[in-house]
Parts: sequence; structure tokens; C-alpha cells
Amino acid sequence: MRILLLNPNTSQDMTDRMVAVARTVASAGTTLVPVTAARGMPYIASRAEAQIGGAIALEMIAEHHRGVDAVVIAAFGDPGLLGARELFDIPIVGMAEAAMLSACMLGRRFGIVTFARALGPWYEDCVAMHGLASRCAGIRMLDAPVRAVATVQDDSEDLLVELAIRSVAQDEADVIILAGAPLAGLARRVAHRIPVPLVDQVGAAVKQAEALVALRPRKATTGTFSRPPAKPAIGLPQPLTERIAHTDEAASLRAG
Amino acid sequence: MRILLLNPNTSQDMTDRMVAVARTVASAGTTLVPVTAARGMPYIASRAEAQIGGAIALEMIAEHHRGVDAVVIAAFGDPGLLGARELFDIPIVGMAEAAMLSACMLGRRFGIVTFARALGPWYEDCVAMHGLASRCAGIRMLDAPVRAVATVQDDSEDLLVELAIRSVAQDEADVIILAGAPLAGLARRVAHRIPVPLVDQVGAAVKQAEALVALRPRKATTGTFSRPPAKPAIGLPQPLTERIAHTDEAASLRAG
Amino acid sequence: MRILLLNPNTSQDMTDRMVAVARTVASAGTTLVPVTAARGMPYIASRAEAQIGGAIALEMIAEHHRGVDAVVIAAFGDPGLLGARELFDIPIVGMAEAAMLSACMLGRRFGIVTFARALGPWYEDCVAMHGLASRCAGIRMLDAPVRAVATVQDDSEDLLVELAIRSVAQDEADVIILAGAPLAGLARRVAHRIPVPLVDQVGAAVKQAEALVALRPRKATTGTFSRPPAKPAIGLPQPLTERIAHTDEAASLRAG
Amino acid sequence: MRILLLNPNTSQDMTDRMVAVARTVASAGTTLVPVTAARGMPYIASRAEAQIGGAIALEMIAEHHRGVDAVVIAAFGDPGLLGARELFDIPIVGMAEAAMLSACMLGRRFGIVTFARALGPWYEDCVAMHGLASRCAGIRMLDAPVRAVATVQDDSEDLLVELAIRSVAQDEADVIILAGAPLAGLARRVAHRIPVPLVDQVGAAVKQAEALVALRPRKATTGTFSRPPAKPAIGLPQPLTERIAHTDEAASLRAG
Amino acid sequence: MRILLLNPNTSQDMTDRMVAVARTVASAGTTLVPVTAARGMPYIASRAEAQIGGAIALEMIAEHHRGVDAVVIAAFGDPGLLGARELFDIPIVGMAEAAMLSACMLGRRFGIVTFARALGPWYEDCVAMHGLASRCAGIRMLDAPVRAVATVQDDSEDLLVELAIRSVAQDEADVIILAGAPLAGLARRVAHRIPVPLVDQVGAAVKQAEALVALRPRKATTGTFSRPPAKPAIGLPQPLTERIAHTDEAASLRAG
Amino acid sequence: MRILLLNPNTSQDMTDRMVAVARTVASAGTTLVPVTAARGMPYIASRAEAQIGGAIALEMIAEHHRGVDAVVIAAFGDPGLLGARELFDIPIVGMAEAAMLSACMLGRRFGIVTFARALGPWYEDCVAMHGLASRCAGIRMLDAPVRAVATVQDDSEDLLVELAIRSVAQDEADVIILAGAPLAGLARRVAHRIPVPLVDQVGAAVKQAEALVALRPRKATTGTFSRPPAKPAIGLPQPLTERIAHTDEAASLRAG
Repeated sequence: MRILLLNPNTSQDMTDRMVAVARTVASAGTTLVPVTAARGMPYIASRAEAQIGGAIALEMIAEHHRGVDAVVIAAFGDPGLLGARELFDIPIVGMAEAAMLSACMLGRRFGIVTFARALGPWYEDCVAMHGLASRCAGIRMLDAPVRAVATVQDDSEDLLVELAIRSVAQDEADVIILAGAPLAGLARRVAHRIPVPLVDQVGAAVKQAEALVALRPRKATTGTFSRPPAKPAIGLPQPLTERIAHTDEAASLRAG
Repeated sequence: MRILLLNPNTSQDMTDRMVAVARTVASAGTTLVPVTAARGMPYIASRAEAQIGGAIALEMIAEHHRGVDAVVIAAFGDPGLLGARELFDIPIVGMAEAAMLSACMLGRRFGIVTFARALGPWYEDCVAMHGLASRCAGIRMLDAPVRAVATVQDDSEDLLVELAIRSVAQDEADVIILAGAPLAGLARRVAHRIPVPLVDQVGAAVKQAEALVALRPRKATTGTFSRPPAKPAIGLPQPLTERIAHTDEAASLRAG
Repeated sequence: MRILLLNPNTSQDMTDRMVAVARTVASAGTTLVPVTAARGMPYIASRAEAQIGGAIALEMIAEHHRGVDAVVIAAFGDPGLLGARELFDIPIVGMAEAAMLSACMLGRRFGIVTFARALGPWYEDCVAMHGLASRCAGIRMLDAPVRAVATVQDDSEDLLVELAIRSVAQDEADVIILAGAPLAGLARRVAHRIPVPLVDQVGAAVKQAEALVALRPRKATTGTFSRPPAKPAIGLPQPLTERIAHTDEAASLRAG
Repeated sequence: MRILLLNPNTSQDMTDRMVAVARTVASAGTTLVPVTAARGMPYIASRAEAQIGGAIALEMIAEHHRGVDAVVIAAFGDPGLLGARELFDIPIVGMAEAAMLSACMLGRRFGIVTFARALGPWYEDCVAMHGLASRCAGIRMLDAPVRAVATVQDDSEDLLVELAIRSVAQDEADVIILAGAPLAGLARRVAHRIPVPLVDQVGAAVKQAEALVALRPRKATTGTFSRPPAKPAIGLPQPLTERIAHTDEAASLRAG
Repeated sequence: MRILLLNPNTSQDMTDRMVAVARTVASAGTTLVPVTAARGMPYIASRAEAQIGGAIALEMIAEHHRGVDAVVIAAFGDPGLLGARELFDIPIVGMAEAAMLSACMLGRRFGIVTFARALGPWYEDCVAMHGLASRCAGIRMLDAPVRAVATVQDDSEDLLVELAIRSVAQDEADVIILAGAPLAGLARRVAHRIPVPLVDQVGAAVKQAEALVALRPRKATTGTFSRPPAKPAIGLPQPLTERIAHTDEAASLRAG
Repeated sequence: MRILLLNPNTSQDMTDRMVAVARTVASAGTTLVPVTAARGMPYIASRAEAQIGGAIALEMIAEHHRGVDAVVIAAFGDPGLLGARELFDIPIVGMAEAAMLSACMLGRRFGIVTFARALGPWYEDCVAMHGLASRCAGIRMLDAPVRAVATVQDDSEDLLVELAIRSVAQDEADVIILAGAPLAGLARRVAHRIPVPLVDQVGAAVKQAEALVALRPRKATTGTFSRPPAKPAIGLPQPLTERIAHTDEAASLRAG
């Protein structure tokens, strides 16, 4: 099974870190296919950036979906997720979605802990989009500005653990999600310091992608997640244009 | 007062029609500044297309927001709305949002009537995004495929009126919104055939934009709708890149 | 366009203040027609008083609605609003409703700040009545007893600003409503001290009334906001009795 | 124990019928004190009429609350209920509220069946006001116009039974409320024709009033249901004016 | 009228205390029939224990329901309530449910105060099960471990009163429920120390059971609360097995 | 990895069928450990039976949890699920929960199709318990009585497919769950007849159990899903009594 691990940010080191975490939980037969955004922002951290980054995610899937069995959109906040489910035929998993659904099986309410105040409202929109507000105990964010996103999980480990403990004690979270790609892998390292289960977002996403592939769901041919009718788009990258125009199978055959 | 009437679709005739409707309700001192998307889809009609179209809307506002007092994103479904409110300093109004909020003052529940089955789920997401699900009596859509979006309001006038009447009788709608840019202007023409008030989406959007400008709200300097911190984006159109990098004032000064 | 600015309280100075604020935002062609309750309470501040004041508002509209294009019920809490929409043919706007709907276009969640603890629960009922609880970040009230309602916005300006700032910082409000007729006009004066947009309730109500009139909505002839069937009421003021008995057109003709 | 059975409508025969039903369930020690509105509408059937009728209910309680242990506001829709709870010291029970809360103990969802289409939206507001929307299976109304409210339960018995059966079969109601004062007493007569339990609204209200009196709850001296501070009202009936001004104890002593 | 006061815990002293409280509010014609669980836990205090205790409650009702008119399941949290309503023909009242519904008639929001942190989440599930989350101001629990459940209301009276006062002041509770069988009877003793009405859970349950019996509701013969079809259960106590197999009437006749 | 496939019903053939389905999706390293209830009902189909069956599930886990890595409670409706999560240290997955969470990743709303009218309300409670009501398009049930539960998926295949198609067309379900242990395995057989993805409940449960084990979550040591304090239970099976009394480790050591 091949899973596209799609980082809609332009930071290669973030992709590398997530792939490393993903490998620790992936099943024997799973191959991870990492891809990093060639355009966009180094790190999506607002609704505006998610609007743009989600469109870029669609471009990336259009380019890379052939030959993979499922896609993980590896950004907490799930930019482009619902659109991707319409446009493509294989399972698409959002990293926030996978973490939250997994957390639902470990407690009544999950707490979300992240590293920047700006992320809170966007993540809150994401929780609401998934209809999981009643399962969310709250979102806690570091107050101080982040020196470097790439090293924030090391720089602020103690503060993040403290937030998690407060989420348990004050918000009555039964399970904690350390959210945001820069925190990938932290869960395993600090699990012993937090008195409830943690869900690692990358691990959850890979396992959910594997689970969906095993269930072999068909593509909807009717309703809201069937593929939209063909349209002539202009000014978009060629693979996405062809996918929207339903000319990609022909293109693929030509290329093949 | 200058209002940017932004059509995130590439159809110029749709823009023209909306401008014509807008003029019938705009105040004496209001100038409408129409702009049509240079890239994208002829007509946004799915979540995938809204993801892309919303990003294009941000590009368009970045290019045109100087010298206008407010923006109307003239697509029902409000692509890019929340991101635009973060990124820019002037009021941004969504056409769906304006129609629904206006309708809230004319009844307990509004019914939405539109011309294509594909639009329903996207509009439903939009209603939920605005937290107005409890005020929505339901969405009714034409069943038959649409021959031509440009003429659908003429071709299917009777069927649309019938849907509106059913929304009143069966869904207990107190007020009706004829939704989707291709239906702009239809409300006034068929008002006498429907036993409850209609809200015209373009009219509502222009009046709400005027109302917001009159209230002279300041830009948030803190919280989730303050402008995101500067970031180095790559591969985006220059005005949007500069807006994201906070280098647009300088650029504007240079240009000026 | 003539807008009835209806103060359901008996305080003439409150009416005067609201008219002054209204004039600063009203369009050129708008005439404001102020009217103050001849019976009732100096200032409605509880559910019991709103029950009575709302009935008085209906009496006042019955007396004054001829010759105006829309009514603003100028009390936060919107006493009598839904009943008025049934009984009369022109647009009726509630001051709380107008402020909240306008605020929805300026942020995800509005905070309400007011001057007396007693007002909180009534306002909360009002938010719920409009189905806007998910858009409300919370209601904050001055703790200390109010010396004089008429001068509370001057006496407590600093404390009210502080509450607004706390609503932003702690409740994550994106926009603030300074609520209650005695605070009319304060928004503009303190806008520079609060880091998010403010909505002035009187200004919002006037602009929404203008917007509705421009949309020229018809009166519902069916459903829950159509005019209730004629009934023989007793013991009510004559204009209201006639409106309820459907004898007011005749009365109006006789008078005319 | 003395219970004020307050009919906010002006129809004496409706009061008589409700008293007759109430007597069949009242405990041995309970005395019913009926009172019929001296002004208002013969039968409240819209939000506008409920606004007026609720204010009249407050006037009636102000006049009659001395010497009774509890009040039943005997109109489905509960006009004036929340205001009455603020203003007076004894338990106040709404007939709709009592019926719905009783029904909650007999099934997951209650269906409401009533005799006129106009009542639906007002009753729906009432369900929402009590926070019971998730417990309500729906409201079903007779379609045909009612010849005479006084005899509707006899004239339309079969149709009402049919609506109840449909509410069970199609809306999955577990229990049925035959709603509206004119239907008082019908429940017992048709119980054998409907396959789920019925709740009689008058019976439920009397038993809930008795239950509350037995629990001897104190009047709140703080918070939203404490008595509002004294105010000088003008143009209201004397007992209500004195109650609002906190001069009624003195008045009562003088009278005594 | 005979009411089965069913304690699903094995603590006889808890039953005795509840019977004593119940007698102070029961009507003249009411006989209380107490019964204490013969197996299970001394005090149910978690979801796991409620799962087991609820099944035991069904066994107890199967054994004792003949000859009584209604059942009170006398444990806050209402273990086994919905199942009992399916399986048996007489009214079944949950102690939490009765307290909460009674509280709804005394204020907009009730606060729940209890003596152990472990009870909070289970009670919260119970509030949600009854669809009353919007009427609940919150649950406050003693922090310190409880020395002896049997004497906790005496040992911690001051702390419990303080929690109640905080629930009023900070959570805006209009009415307080002192929850959990070990707190039965405390309400009356401390009522004068708390500025809003209190609801005693045992008192409320007895009065609601009396009220339901007076309304003489029939057993549903269709829908979700009709008796489940006969089934051959194995390994359950004989009365419950016979009730599930629909052989209990025969058994009862044989026994009679 | 060893997964306990726990059937809380007494039907061995149902267990066999579910194991067969489970094997088709289980990973190479997964061993399924089936166990069938020794007491209880042949098939749980009501809230009463779920109350009893859930308690039996706890007994079964107490007896069998040593030596397995996770438990699947293999009954749609998830009897005993939350209690099991408190009482035991390994991941516990409910079959309904796993199916619904998996379905959430394949569409906005899942439709539930099952074979008996009696199951609807219990399943609806289950959806609500998981906080997923907003993601559920509705529950559709066969109307006719079921001849034999064991063969219902063969006997009624066409009718069940028809219900699924109606759920898509009329309820706007994006994905379908064929619910109830007797339908295990049907999904794969009829997938080509239904135009949206299907989720097989047994397959989903096994994959979710595998996913949770891979994430290696720790047992909560605080909060609502930590193990309840030790208690002396009486009249329960020995392994459950020991688990509740915290004497099971000692017992296990003695046995080992």
C-alpha cells in the first residue's frame, strides 16, 4: 500500500520529520510517498493561508495521486480536505481529522494543545467543520511568540507539557492531541509526563489511511462527494486543469 | 463610497448582470467597481472549486483593494470570505452571508432555492459556517440538469417559483433567498408570485457593504481577525505575496 | 424614507440621544421619526419589564406606523419584535438584532458589554431568540450599581472599555457591541481604545432599516409572519384594537 | 394549598372547562382559584397576541397572587411566564412547560398536536424557549380553519386523533400532548385510541404546581430570577405598578 | 398509591435516609415501598458501576413491580431508567431526571453540586441523556476525597454550601440541585444559606411519581417504549427472565 | 497483536460470521480471539437488553482481557463501551463507534441501514452518545418483521439495498453503514449496487483496534477514564468482582 504524505507547507524539514514519525507506526506493507509544497507558505497558520494552502494541496494531489492508494494531508487544520474528497477517487485523510477521530475512541473529550495563539481560531473552525465541537474540551496555545517553528517542540517541551496537564485538570480533557505539524513526534517523547493518553497526529493519520484502504470503499458516483462535472478551468496548473476537465485519464494514458 | 464587486468566477456576463442589479439598490453616493476573475472556473459549483476560487478571490482583493471602501465577494457560498477578513483592512461582505442575515430580519427561517443539485451541500456548509443552521428552513434545488447557467433564471423561472412556494408550504420558510449568482435579479421579477418576502442576494450584499462602511469599523489589531504576521510566500501572484509579506504598503508607496 | 425610531421606555432624553447618534449615520434621504413611550418604565431592564414594554411597543407602532417605511424598536433586547413583524406590514428592526447581525460580518464572535448585571440574562435570552448563541463570545456587565442610567456612559467609560478589552482577551471576541440604549453613541468615542471593531447599536439599526426598505420586501400573506386573522380585542388602546380587528384601514380612511 | 388557575384569555367558558379538568387530578387538599382575563383577546393565537396576553397575565397575577401558593398560567405557549417568575415570590407554572416536562418522563420525544396552523410557530418558539427542542418530535396542526374554538375538540376529535397517530408513526413521538386550552380534557377521552401515553396539559400543570409547592422552594434573592429593583412605572394597572415599585406590601398592609 | 423507592446500591442506610426524606413530601395517600439492592456496589460512582447497577435495577423492578403504581430509581444518574421504561408498564422516574425537570420550573439554569469528583462526568452524561445540557449551569464537586459517604452531608456541609454559592455567583445558576443519594435531605437544612431555590432530589422524585400516576398514562403499545418482543434469555434472575420472555403474567397468575 | 472480538449476544453463529469478516481485513500480525456471551439474550435489540448486555460485556472483558491488546465490543449500539473504558487498561472499540468514525472520513453524513424497526431508537441513542448526530443523515429500518435474524442479510438483501439507495437519494447520505451484527459481511457483497461508499462495521472495528494499538496510548491515571477506586462488590462474577476491588492483579499472579 502506498500512502501520499502531502505537506502543503513549503518546509522540507517538516516533511522529513513527519515521515520519520510515520514510519514508526506504518504497517509492514505500507510505503510512504512524501511530497512537499513547491509554492505557498513555509507554515500555514491562519484561515487566509489555509485557503491558499488548500488550493495548493489540490494541485499537489492532482499531480501525485496516480499510483498511490490514499492521501494524508499532513497539516493540522486539514486544508483542502473536503474539496479533495470530491475531486479524487482514493481515500483522503486529514491529519486533524484522523487525530480527533482516534482521540474520540480514547475518551469523551479531547484537548488540543498547540504552540501559537494564531492557530487557535483556525483549529476551532476545523473542529466545527468536522462536527466534533461537543467532543473537544478546548484548545490551549502557548502565549509567547515562537522563535523557530522548526525547533519549537524542543524549545518549549516543558511549556507544552504544562498546557496539556492544564487541559486535563481544568478543561477535563480525557485525551490530548499535540497539534500542528511542528509538534509531530513529540507525543511519544512526553507521554509519560501526562496522565491521560496522547494521540500523535501523524501516527493517527497513517493508521487511518491504512484502515480506509483496507475497507476498500468505492468512489461515490452520486451525491455531494461524487466527482464534479467536467469544467474548462483556466490559469491553473495542468494536472489540476485536466482533473477538473475530466481529461486526466486521457492525459495519463498518453503519458503512460 | 466605492464598493468592489468581486466575481470569483471567470464569467464576465455574470458580473455584468450582478452590477445591473446592484445599481438598482445602491445609494446615490455609491460607486460599484466590478472585477471578474482572470483565472479559475466559469462558475464555482463544488467545494473543490470553492477552495480554488476562494484563493483566487484573495489574489483579486490583493490586487484591487486599494482605493475601495469595502468588498463584496459576489458568489453565493462566500469563497475566501474568512481569509479575506484576516488579510485586509476594509469590510468584506459575502453574498450568501448578506442575504441570510438580511433574511433573518424578515422571518424566523429562510428557505434557500437554487438551480442545481450540486450546489446544495456546498451552500449547506456555508449556512453552517455562519452558524445560521437554526435559521435555515432548508435548501431546495432544481432536479433537472441545467442547459445554460447564463440563462437558467429565464429558462426555469416557473420551476424556481414552484420550489420557493414548496419551501414556504412544506419547510415553513418565512422568507426566500434565490441563491447563486446566475439568479441575481430574479427576486424582483417573481416577488408577486411568492407569498412571503424574497431577498435578492446582490441587493442585500451591496446594502450590507454600505451599512458597514457607514459604521466605520476599525481593523482588529489583535485576535483572530487581525492581520497575520508577515511571511515569505513563494509562487503566488505579486500583490498577494506582498500583502502576505507586509511589503505592500511600501510597494504601494513606490507605485504611488 | 421615513424610519420610526421607537423608544419603548418613557425616558425622553434617551430618545434624544439615540436620534442624535442615528443622524450621524443615516443616509441623505432618510428622515427619523422619534417617538417615546407614554406609559411603562423609564428603562426596561428585566424580562418582566420587557414583557410589558413589548406590548407597549405594539401599541405605539399601531398608533404611528402609517406614513413610515420601517420601524426601529430602539431597545436592546428587542421587546415586541416578533409580534410586531406579524401584526404590521413594514420592516421592523430590533436594535439588538441589528447590532448582532452587523457584528457577524466583522468577526466570528461578538462580545456584548453592558452596564448592569440585571441586563445579562435578558440579553442572553435575546441572543438565543435570534439563534445567534454560537456567534456570541459572552456578555460582560458592570458589577457596581449604576448611579444614573442617563449618565452611565460618561460615569463608567473607563470601566466599560476595560470590560470590552477583557471580552477580547479572555472571551476571544472579534468584535464588541456596547449594548443598551444608555450606551448609544459611546462606540464612536472609545473605538480607538479597543483593539477590535465596535458596533454601535443605533447606527446598525438605522442602516439595517434602510437596507431592508431598499430591498422592498413584500408582506407575507401566508405562514407565521402573515397578519393574524381579525379578532375582537377588549381593553386595549384603540389603534391596536383596530389593527387586531382589521378595522384600521377603514379607520384610517375615515380619519384621512 | 391554593392554586391560581389563570386564563390570560377573555373566554370564561375556557376557564370553566379547564377548572373541570383540573379538579379530576387535583389532590384532596388543593383548592383551585380560577380567574379569567378582563381584557385582551378571546383566544391568544400568535406571537403578537402572546406579547399582549403575557403582559395582561402579569397584571392578573399582581392582582391575585396574595393568598395563593402557586400560579398556573393556563395557556399553552406560556405567555408571561419568565417575567412572572422574576416579579413574584411563589412558584409559577406554564401549562406548556408542565405538559412538556411531564411528557419527558414518559418517552424520549413528545409530539404536539393542536387545532390551528397559526399556533405552530408560536408553540415552536415556546419549545425552544424551554430548551426542549431535542425532546420534541414535531408539531402537527389541523389544516382546515376552525369553526368555533369552544367546540373544536368535539368537532374535530377524529382528525386530532389521526394527527396524533401520525405523529407517533411518522415523527416517532413516544408520547403525545394535545395542546391549546380548547383541547383541555380531550386526552382522557381519546387515550384508548392512541397507542402511546397522552399528557393532559391542565392535569400536568396542576400536578406540577402541587409538586413545586410541596418542595417549598425559596424565592431567589440574587441572580436573574430575584425580584427586579423598584421602579416608578406609569400607565399600568395599580396592583402591577405597586408590585414594580415595591410598594405592594405596604398597599397590602393598608388594605388588610 | 404505592411507589417503589428503589435503591440500586447495596447500602441499607442510604435507603433509610431517602425514605425519611420522601415521607416529608409524600401525599397523604402515598405509600412508599423501599427496596435495597441485594447485589452490586455499596455506592454507584462511575459509568462502569452504573452499567452494572442499571442492570440490577431492572432485576429489582422485575421482582417488585407488581402491586406498585410507579417506581423511583433512587440514584442520581438514573441507572437503568430508559430500559426500565421499555420493559415495564408503570411510570418509572429517575431521581436525577425528576430533580432536573423540577428545577427547570424554578429558573433558567440549574447548578448541580455533588460530593466527589468522580461523579461529575457520569452526571454530565446523564444531563446530556435527558437533553438538558442547555439548562445546566455546570456541575461542581468537592475536591477532597470523601471519608465516609454515609456522613458526607454532615462532614462537608459548609463546603457544599460554598460550592452552591459559587455555582450561583460564577456559573449563574438560578436554582441548585444537591445531587447524589448521600446528600438526600440536605437541601431543606441549608436552604436558608443559599440565595436561590434548592431542589431536593428525593422529594422531587416522589412528587413527580405521584404526578405521573395521577395523569394515568397508558403503556405504549407501539414505538420505542413499547415492551420489547419476547425473547429467551439465559443466566438472568427468574423474574427478569420471565419478564423478557413475556411469561411473567402466567407466572404471576400461577403464584397468585 | 491479539484482539478480543467480544460478542455480547449468546449466538455462536453470529460470532463465527463476524470472525470470518474480520479475518478478511485484519493485518498479517493480528490474531482474533472470539468470545460469545454465556448468558444474556440471543440478540440485543432494545435499551433494556443493552443495559443487561453491557453489564455482561464487562463480565466478559474481566474474564478475558489478560493477554489481549485490545477489545472490540462486537454489537452495534456499543453496549458497555464507556464503562469498559474506565475499568480496563487496554483500548476498547465499539463496533458502532468504529463504523461511524470511519464513515466520517468518507463523507459528510453517514446513513445507517438496519433490519428491524426496534433497533432504530437504540441506535439513535448511540449516535447521540458519540456526539455524532450532526454527521448522521438518518436511520432507515426494514418495516417487515424479521423471520430469522441469522439469515436476514440473505433473506432481505434486496430490501436492504433499496433502503441504502433511499438513504442516499432522500436523506443525502454520502456513505452507508449496514448496521447490526447480523448484517456483518453484507457490505462487501452489495457494494457495487449502492452509489456511495459502504462501511463494514466489523472491518472498521478491527482496523480501528489495530490503529489504537499501534498508537500505544497509555491508560489514564486521572480524570473520568482512570480506573475507579477499589470497591467491595457483591453478587457479581468473580473476575469482575476482583477487577472492581483491584484484587485482580493479585489473583492473576496467584493463577499465573
